Amino acid sequence: MTETPAQTRPPAPERGASPQDGRVTAEACAALLADLRNASPLVQCVTNAVVTNFTANVLLALGAAPAMVDIPGEAGQFAPVASGVLVNLGTPTDSQRAAMREAAEAAGSAGTPWVLDPVAVGFLSVRTDAARQLVALGPTIIRGNASEIIALAGAGGGGRGVDSTDETAAALDAARALAQRHGSVVAISGPVDAVVPARGAVIRVDNGTPLLTRVTGGGCALGAVMAAFASLTPDALLAATAATGVYTLAAEKAAALAAGPGTFAPAFLDALAAITPADVVQGLNLPDGD
Amino acid sequence: MTETPAQTRPPAPERGASPQDGRVTAEACAALLADLRNASPLVQCVTNAVVTNFTANVLLALGAAPAMVDIPGEAGQFAPVASGVLVNLGTPTDSQRAAMREAAEAAGSAGTPWVLDPVAVGFLSVRTDAARQLVALGPTIIRGNASEIIALAGAGGGGRGVDSTDETAAALDAARALAQRHGSVVAISGPVDAVVPARGAVIRVDNGTPLLTRVTGGGCALGAVMAAFASLTPDALLAATAATGVYTLAAEKAAALAAGPGTFAPAFLDALAAITPADVVQGLNLPDGD
Amino acid sequence: MTETPAQTRPPAPERGASPQDGRVTAEACAALLADLRNASPLVQCVTNAVVTNFTANVLLALGAAPAMVDIPGEAGQFAPVASGVLVNLGTPTDSQRAAMREAAEAAGSAGTPWVLDPVAVGFLSVRTDAARQLVALGPTIIRGNASEIIALAGAGGGGRGVDSTDETAAALDAARALAQRHGSVVAISGPVDAVVPARGAVIRVDNGTPLLTRVTGGGCALGAVMAAFASLTPDALLAATAATGVYTLAAEKAAALAAGPGTFAPAFLDALAAITPADVVQGLNLPDGD
Repeated sequence: MTETPAQTRPPAPERGASPQDGRVTAEACAALLADLRNASPLVQCVTNAVVTNFTANVLLALGAAPAMVDIPGEAGQFAPVASGVLVNLGTPTDSQRAAMREAAEAAGSAGTPWVLDPVAVGFLSVRTDAARQLVALGPTIIRGNASEIIALAGAGGGGRGVDSTDETAAALDAARALAQRHGSVVAISGPVDAVVPARGAVIRVDNGTPLLTRVTGGGCALGAVMAAFASLTPDALLAATAATGVYTLAAEKAAALAAGPGTFAPAFLDALAAITPADVVQGLNLPDGD
Repeated sequence: MTETPAQTRPPAPERGASPQDGRVTAEACAALLADLRNASPLVQCVTNAVVTNFTANVLLALGAAPAMVDIPGEAGQFAPVASGVLVNLGTPTDSQRAAMREAAEAAGSAGTPWVLDPVAVGFLSVRTDAARQLVALGPTIIRGNASEIIALAGAGGGGRGVDSTDETAAALDAARALAQRHGSVVAISGPVDAVVPARGAVIRVDNGTPLLTRVTGGGCALGAVMAAFASLTPDALLAATAATGVYTLAAEKAAALAAGPGTFAPAFLDALAAITPADVVQGLNLPDGD
Repeated sequence: MTETPAQTRPPAPERGASPQDGRVTAEACAALLADLRNASPLVQCVTNAVVTNFTANVLLALGAAPAMVDIPGEAGQFAPVASGVLVNLGTPTDSQRAAMREAAEAAGSAGTPWVLDPVAVGFLSVRTDAARQLVALGPTIIRGNASEIIALAGAGGGGRGVDSTDETAAALDAARALAQRHGSVVAISGPVDAVVPARGAVIRVDNGTPLLTRVTGGGCALGAVMAAFASLTPDALLAATAATGVYTLAAEKAAALAAGPGTFAPAFLDALAAITPADVVQGLNLPDGD
C-alpha cells in the first residue's frame, strides 16, 4: 500500500516542541529525530517517477509515513491533512504540474510546511517555468544542488547574473537571495552541505559519502525527509539541518557496509531505520564558519 | 523488458485443477503454488507508479510473468489474453483510471479473474469515485487493509455506517457485505490476515512480519500475487488464501535474514523464488475460528 | 536528483576514438569501457515507468549520467545536448509517445545516437503503431528479444511473414531486414545475444545469466547502456557489442554472489561499478560463426 488513509492518522504533532534556544546543534537535531520517531509524520510527495519508490522507502525506513498523492483533485485535498509536503520537479508531466500547484497552494493556506526541489531547472523550459511559479508561493524549504539553486535564483526574476567562477560561493549568494525573497530556508547539497537562512549564519553539515550520488534519488529523497522534519518544528533552519544530518550520517554508516552502489541502497535504508538520537549527537559534524 | 509478448505465452492453464473438496488447507495452498510454478501465469497489472517495479519483481521472483500494460487502448486489449489482472488505485491519473475501467470490463467479459485494490479510498475523492465504479463490475477478489475495506463498503452505497469501535470486527462485517454485494472474495491485510467469502467461514492466515509494512508495495504486490493464484483455480477463497499464505510465509523467512527494511526487500524476493510447496505445508498457519 | 543539469556537463566526447580497424574484439570493447569511464556520457532516457529507477541506477553504477527527461517540450530540447538517447516503448502513455517522437527527431537532427527498444510490440496496438513511426526515423541501434524484432520487422511494412519454426533464425532474418531498411544495428537479446549489422558478420555474445530475466528491466536497462556506448564511437556494431558484453559479463559476476533474484539486483549494480577493461578482455566471450 502506498498511502496511509488520512482518517486513521494521529493528529499532527505540535510544532515547536524541539528547538530550545534557536541554536542549531547536534543535540537539537537528535531531539528532532526522537520527535520524528514518536510522531511518524505523514509526508505527501508529489515527486518524479524515477525516485518515487526509493523516496517512499526512505520515509518508511526512517519512521515517517509516505503518501504519494500526486494527481489533480487529490493533491490539494490531501495537503491540509498531511504533516508535510514535498514538491519535486524531476518528471513534470501536465498532470504532475497541476498537482504540484494544488498541493503547494493548499499547503500554504493550511500552514502545512512544504519543500520545493527544483530538479534540473535552468536549461529545461517546462520545469523552469513551473519552478518560477512554485517558488513564488513561498516554500518552507528549497533544496537543490549548487547549479539548481543558482538557476532558480536567476529564474525567480530580479536576481543578479551568476558571474562568480566559484560555484559554491555563487550558490551561497543565490541561496541567500532566494531565502530573503521567498521567506524560505535554502539547503544546498554537495560534498559539504549548506543550509542558508534569510539572515544569520549559514549552517554546514560535513557528513555523507560519494555513494549517495551513485544512487538515483539520493538527493530527491532528502527533500522528503526535510518535509518530515519540517512538520516537527517551526524552525525550518533546524529542520533542514537535522534532515540533512540524519540522512548523510546514515549514508556514511551504510557506506562502511556496502560493496558498491547496489548494496549501498539497501544498507542505507537499514541505517535510516537503525540510526538513533545518540548516533546523531556523536556523529553529526557541524563545522563552524560561514 | 516489462512485458512478455502475448503471442508467445502458453495457453492459460485449466482452472479447477487444484481445489479438492472445497476445504482451504495448507496442502491445497501448496498444490496451488506447484501449479503456479508450472503454469507461470501472465499477470496484467494496472498499478501505481510507486510500486510498479517492486510488483513486477515479486511476480518474476515467484515464477509468474508480469505485464504492466496500463494505458487506454491496450489495457482492454490485453486483459482477455492475460491469466489474471490487478487493478490498483494507488496513483489514479486520468490515463490510469481509463485503463483500469477498460481492463476490468474486458476481464469480466472474457472471464479473466481480476483483483481490485482500493488503495486509500475514503477520504480522497478521485479514487473513491473510481473505486465505486470498479467494485460494481464484480472483482474476483478485493484486497485492502481494514480501513480501506470499511471505506469501500460505505462508498459502495447501501452499506451501514461504520459504528463499531472494534476496527477488525467492523472490517469483517464490511468485507462480508462487499462479498455478498459484488460476488467477490475479500482479503483484509493486517497482523493476522483474513479472507472473507460471501458465505461460510472466514479464513485466517497467521504468518508474516512487520517488515512488510516498512517496504512500500508490501501490500500492493500481494494483490498481484492474488491475481496470479486466481488464474489457477475457480475457487477464489482458496486463491486468496494461498496467495496470502505463500507471500507472508516467504516474508517471514526473509525477515530472519534481514538487518532492516532495506535488506529485507531483496531477501523477500529471494524467498519468493525459493519457497516450495513443502515449505507451505510445513509453515502455513491457518488458525481455526471466525 | 534525477537529472544532471545540461549546462554543467562536459562537452560530448569525440566520437571515433575507439574502433581501431573495424574489427569487433574483446579488446575494442574493453577500450570503449575505458572511454565511458572517462567521458561519463549523459544518457537521456524516455523509458517506461516500471524500470526507470533501475535504468538510472544501472547507468550511474556503470559510470554514465542518467537524465530521465521524458515530457513533451523538454524531451526534444534535451536530446541535442545529450550524449545518447534511449526510447523505450514499455508504458507508452500519450505524453510519453509525444516525448519519444520529439526526442527521436531531435536526436536525428542533432546527430545524437539513439536506441529504440520496441517492448512487446506486435499484439498491442498503441505501441506497435508508435514503433512503426519511430523505427522509420532510423534509430542508431534497435534492441529487443527475438519476438519483438520479428514483430517489428513485420510491422515496418514490406516485411515477409514470419513462417520459420526456428525463432532464432527468423529473428536473424528480421534483424537483417530492419538493419538494411533503417540503417540501424539490431541487437537481439537471448541466451546468446546477437548483434546484426546491415551487412557483414553477425556478432554473438555468449555471456550472462538467466537471473537477468528474473529482474524487471534486465533487458530495458541494456538499451540505456547501448545509448551510452553509442555516444563514444560512430561504430554502432562495436557499441552494441561492447554494451552487451560489459552488461552480461557484469551480470555473470553478480550471479556468482547472489542467493536469488532479489540479491542479484544490488550485486549486479555493484558489478557494473567494479568491472574493468581488463575483466572485459579476460571474460568476454565472442564466439565465431554465423
